[in-house]
Amino acid sequence: MEKFERIERKLIAKGTIVDYYHDIIRVPNGNVVTWDFIGNKGAAAVIPVMEDGKIIMVRQYRNAIERETLEIPAGGLDFPGEPTKDAAVRELEEETGYKSDNIEFLISIKTTVAFCNENIDIYVAKNLMPSKQNLDEDEFIHVESYDVEELCKMIYEGKIEDSKTVAAIMSYKNKYL
Amino acid sequence: MEKFERIERKLIAKGTIVDYYHDIIRVPNGNVVTWDFIGNKGAAAVIPVMEDGKIIMVRQYRNAIERETLEIPAGGLDFPGEPTKDAAVRELEEETGYKSDNIEFLISIKTTVAFCNENIDIYVAKNLMPSKQNLDEDEFIHVESYDVEELCKMIYEGKIEDSKTVAAIMSYKNKYL
Repeated sequence: MEKFERIERKLIAKGTIVDYYHDIIRVPNGNVVTWDFIGNKGAAAVIPVMEDGKIIMVRQYRNAIERETLEIPAGGLDFPGEPTKDAAVRELEEETGYKSDNIEFLISIKTTVAFCNENIDIYVAKNLMPSKQNLDEDEFIHVESYDVEELCKMIYEGKIEDSKTVAAIMSYKNKYL
Repeated sequence: MEKFERIERKLIAKGTIVDYYHDIIRVPNGNVVTWDFIGNKGAAAVIPVMEDGKIIMVRQYRNAIERETLEIPAGGLDFPGEPTKDAAVRELEEETGYKSDNIEFLISIKTTVAFCNENIDIYVAKNLMPSKQNLDEDEFIHVESYDVEELCKMIYEGKIEDSKTVAAIMSYKNKYL
């Protein structure tokens, strides 16, 4: 590959879950350009599969896209480098009220590679056991469940658009069903 | 759903392809919180399918994740509200050197709903006709082609992680193959 050299990464603003930078890059033709960079500590997500094969989903309002979404349970890492499986186990219980002793890695995704380093490791959780939902103070989540076929239909109909959820459900179906 | 009220959206910094804001939100329990918001004008992506069923892919260096990626061709809209099909047609030709007169909508994704409004509309292009690659000055792209099965394998192996590419390839396979 051609050589890209990052000359400097300038912090422009610190946020709650992201930080915003200007990266000064020397591209292969020698030009020096400024590119946006959004730093994020990463996240974990989980496909909770019930005995009958239905998937537990969470419905919530998303300010960034000004509407509610239907997503697989997910959440940011507590600290950079936290094992993503630990985060997946925690978010499963906090958001849905289920625990699992059978959590298997499925895929990793980078949500938007043009400007952000966010990674989401996606797991499949089986053998779900009722526990207790424990939402953050400013988190408002409804728990629902759907057949995989229904979820696929909703993806093609535009009712599910969240990239981690689309990637997760389709990759799960392709591997296991 | 519960009521979320956005009291203010404060522009913190303007970037090249994103803008960074602080959103002041009144959440349903009455608390007032500050959430990050990254504004982006959206993008289009395309799965170029050759006569023999192989998919044309682009390999490029991605500064945000500090490595090269294998992705479906894609690019930002030229202006907010540009029809995404026009952008898909343009990016197909510019990045791969192929034109198509048969482009069909597949799915839309929101890349990272926790803090960003980025939407990517994903199309399938068939009946590909050789034309001329026309890269931006600071764009360095290698064109390759793969069977769908190879691409799926690379997704499970972690060799393809880009969310639009994972969502696109899996959704294409599930619908058509």
